[in-house]
Amino acid sequence: MSATLPSLQAWLEIRRQSIDEALDRFVPADGEPRIVWDAMRYSLLAGGKRLRPLLALAAAEAVAERQAQDPDRAATLALPAACALELIHTYSLVHDDLPAMDNDVLRRGRPTAHVVYGDGMAILAGDALLTQAFALLASEPREVPGLPASELASRKIAAIRLIAEAAGASGMVGGQAIDLRAADAGAAALDAAALRDMHARKTGALIRAAALAGASMAGAPPPLSAAIDEYASQVGLAFQIVDDILDVEGASADLGKTAGKDAAAGKPTYPALYGLEESKRLAAGCIDAALRALADAGLSGHLPALARWVTGRQS
Amino acid sequence: MSATLPSLQAWLEIRRQSIDEALDRFVPADGEPRIVWDAMRYSLLAGGKRLRPLLALAAAEAVAERQAQDPDRAATLALPAACALELIHTYSLVHDDLPAMDNDVLRRGRPTAHVVYGDGMAILAGDALLTQAFALLASEPREVPGLPASELASRKIAAIRLIAEAAGASGMVGGQAIDLRAADAGAAALDAAALRDMHARKTGALIRAAALAGASMAGAPPPLSAAIDEYASQVGLAFQIVDDILDVEGASADLGKTAGKDAAAGKPTYPALYGLEESKRLAAGCIDAALRALADAGLSGHLPALARWVTGRQS
Repeated sequence: MSATLPSLQAWLEIRRQSIDEALDRFVPADGEPRIVWDAMRYSLLAGGKRLRPLLALAAAEAVAERQAQDPDRAATLALPAACALELIHTYSLVHDDLPAMDNDVLRRGRPTAHVVYGDGMAILAGDALLTQAFALLASEPREVPGLPASELASRKIAAIRLIAEAAGASGMVGGQAIDLRAADAGAAALDAAALRDMHARKTGALIRAAALAGASMAGAPPPLSAAIDEYASQVGLAFQIVDDILDVEGASADLGKTAGKDAAAGKPTYPALYGLEESKRLAAGCIDAALRALADAGLSGHLPALARWVTGRQS
Repeated sequence: MSATLPSLQAWLEIRRQSIDEALDRFVPADGEPRIVWDAMRYSLLAGGKRLRPLLALAAAEAVAERQAQDPDRAATLALPAACALELIHTYSLVHDDLPAMDNDVLRRGRPTAHVVYGDGMAILAGDALLTQAFALLASEPREVPGLPASELASRKIAAIRLIAEAAGASGMVGGQAIDLRAADAGAAALDAAALRDMHARKTGALIRAAALAGASMAGAPPPLSAAIDEYASQVGLAFQIVDDILDVEGASADLGKTAGKDAAAGKPTYPALYGLEESKRLAAGCIDAALRALADAGLSGHLPALARWVTGRQS
């Protein structure tokens, strides 16, 4: 593991830079009317781990490598979809932070969008980020040398469908609805199976869609897509367990958001349900399963190190 | 005009029925988690004029007729896009009615979504309707006899792009942001040019996208798309002027929403800016321009009658 970490760090740095540059181009500073583009950029360009776009790019690269194709070309193909996923993730945070939802005032170390722009404009900025994600998925990349236009169109359609279904009423939004209802009802509202279902929708679905959309833009055949799906499902679950653990253990300064918030709100969490040590064992088990799925399909690249990074993070 | 009206009424009845059946199928009653699908259906299936889907279908049919193709086949091709436009329109109403925005309690003759489901769930239902629109655009129709899959994929991509750009930060959401700011600042905040720009974004952009997406799904060549665009721009403007007039003249029972609300909120309106009679003349001028654009391109079908219907409506 220590041998791969420096290479992961270098890769993370290069890819994060290309993601941030692309986000700045796809949600430009000169958009009109200015107020809504400013509010979108405020939340979008506030940093963040960029986990979903990184997963999309790593999956695209791994699929290309596995098929003896150029990983950099695959990453270029998947970059707009990767950015669209970050737009969707950011919109979900903006809406989730609203007083009518989680009522949070701190996010990525800064005041939340509604604190700065007001509730109405924050709702609109979220709506605009979500809509812009689909404009981006449909328009970029415009053309790719060596890839027939019809093949590019059908890969885009597949990615749009994957992402919209994962982000929608049966996926991410559905998970937020369950969460909202459970928070209203108190901590005892969800048992272990219901908690897992809620997280599979609320965070898991978009993480899966990220890896699958990256694989799809790189032209993954069904067996590779299935392996990527299993990998991303396990990574998504581990990510959520670690999130809950950090909410208990972390300090607000490291997290960039209010620590202990979930527990204080009476929300069901993995540590509350299983205890801290068992939660850590569960997360480690997910990563093992993710790595097995990759190995069985002959996939590697940065995907294994990215899975380990998810559980090792401190914020 | 009296000779075309019965045929328009018959067409409206048939097409509204197919739209309502398709909406019920695309946003099904057995979706899970139930709470968010229920909230989506509450607002979506509450009636409504279905202007945007009707425009999409009428444009698709007119383009087919103009090219000596089957109008019914074109309507079938455009039906999912037509429904997606109604999902997007409905989401915009749900969010617009929130206390943080217009704070309206009555819509389409029923209590608004946030009154019934709470603010948080109404935000999520709106998010889910918007997302489902793009899932629908990407997935339906799955295949069309006689149309190559690659041609279908490229028409879908064109429709998604058109609709996302019209609904997004520079279109509908941008118009809502301008409106929100203007309402905060009072009636004098917008002059005539700024009012027109606000409406062109807030309602005009999606009405244009509806007609254009219908035309695009029917395979319209650029000259026909340009004529449809001019037609729909004029119809959209007329629609907004009539909306403002009805807000002054109408009763709440007919409108299905609170009459006099805009004026009371100090929002800029056409009657406030131009007076009632001049506003009516402006609307009639738009319809004339819309009909000329059609005639010049040899387009007809139900588009002329639909334009007249927009200005003749009482609610």
